[in-house]
Amino acid sequence: MAALRRLAAISSHLSPQAEEPLSSVVPAVVSSGRAGDNECVFCGIIRGESPAFKLYEDDICVCILDSNPLTFGHSLIITKSHFPSLKATPPSVVAAMCSTVPFLSKAIMKATHCESFNLVVNNGSAAGQVIFHTHLHIIPRKVGDQLWPSESFKRQPVERNQETFSLVNSIREQLSSTDESTLQKNSKENL
Amino acid sequence: MAALRRLAAISSHLSPQAEEPLSSVVPAVVSSGRAGDNECVFCGIIRGESPAFKLYEDDICVCILDSNPLTFGHSLIITKSHFPSLKATPPSVVAAMCSTVPFLSKAIMKATHCESFNLVVNNGSAAGQVIFHTHLHIIPRKVGDQLWPSESFKRQPVERNQETFSLVNSIREQLSSTDESTLQKNSKENL
Repeated sequence: MAALRRLAAISSHLSPQAEEPLSSVVPAVVSSGRAGDNECVFCGIIRGESPAFKLYEDDICVCILDSNPLTFGHSLIITKSHFPSLKATPPSVVAAMCSTVPFLSKAIMKATHCESFNLVVNNGSAAGQVIFHTHLHIIPRKVGDQLWPSESFKRQPVERNQETFSLVNSIREQLSSTDESTLQKNSKENL
Repeated sequence: MAALRRLAAISSHLSPQAEEPLSSVVPAVVSSGRAGDNECVFCGIIRGESPAFKLYEDDICVCILDSNPLTFGHSLIITKSHFPSLKATPPSVVAAMCSTVPFLSKAIMKATHCESFNLVVNNGSAAGQVIFHTHLHIIPRKVGDQLWPSESFKRQPVERNQETFSLVNSIREQLSSTDESTLQKNSKENL
C-alpha cells in the first residue's frame, strides 16, 4: 500500500526502529492509549464500534462519508490515533494523512461528478471544530452552489503599515523561537 | 531545517538518488520549467519578482500574508514549484507542505492572539479557486466572527439508502482502479 510505504519513509528517518513494528499494525484496531477516548465519536469509528461508510483505510487514517454532509459526497479523513486538533498533531502524521488527499479527492470528485472541492480543517471551537479528534473535510463543490457566501466577501488589500509589519515580525519571532529539537521530538511520537 | 529533513526522508524512499541534490537546492529560486508561469502571481512571488510579506520558507514552500485577507493574519502556504491545484500536486509535495501546518499555525495564532484557525484549500473554480497554483489558506478565527455562515447550516444526516450505497461503491471503485504504480510515479516527479 502506497500510504504504508510513504509512512515507512517518514518514520524510518524520524525513528528508524519504528519501521518494522509499523508493518504489523492491525488496521482499524489502533488504540490511542489516552484517557477519555471512549467518549470520542471518531475513536469509536476507528475501533469499529460505531457505524460509518468507510471509503479508504491505511495505517495512519481512515476516510469515511460525513454523517451530516454539507454536500453530496462530503467525506472526512480521520487520524487513527487520537489528537485533539490539527495543531496538536505530529507533523509526520499530518504529512502522511495529507498525502492521501490528491488520491482520495480525485475518486470522490469522479464519483460525485464534481470538478471542484474544498479541503477544510476546523481547528478550535471558534473555527467550527465540534469533534476534537483531528479530521480533514473534503467537500465536493458545484458551480453556483453558494456554499460559502464568504467567497464573495469584500476583502481589503493588506496595507504596508505599522500594524502589518508588527504582525509579520511577531509571526517570525514565534517561528524562530520554536525549538527545532522539540519539533523533531514531537514528530517521533505517536508513530 | 526540519522541513528539509522531512522532505529528505520522503524523497530518499521515493527516489533515493534525489536526496543529495535536494540539499543543494537554492531556496526561493526554484523554476518550475512549465509554460505560462510568467503570468502566475505566485510564481512571481517565488521568483522574488513580486512583493509579499514572507513569513517562512523552506525548500518546498513559502508562507506569506494573504494580500487580501479575510481576517487579520490570514496567511498562505504556497508550493515553490507550479502545480495548478492540490489534486494535481504530487502526494510527497502535499505531505511536505502540510507537515509545516502545525508549526506555522501555532506561530500565526500566537501572533494574532487567536486560539482557532481554518485550514482551507479551494480546488477548482467552483470551489473558489482563483489563482491556479497550489496554496493552503490558514485563516485565524475568533469567537463570534461569523466568517462562515455555513457553519450553522442545517445538515441532513446521511441516509442508509440506495443513493448512499451507490456513492460509496462508486468512490471505492475509483480508488481501487487507481494504479498504485502510477501513484508512486507521480510521487517521484517534481521532487
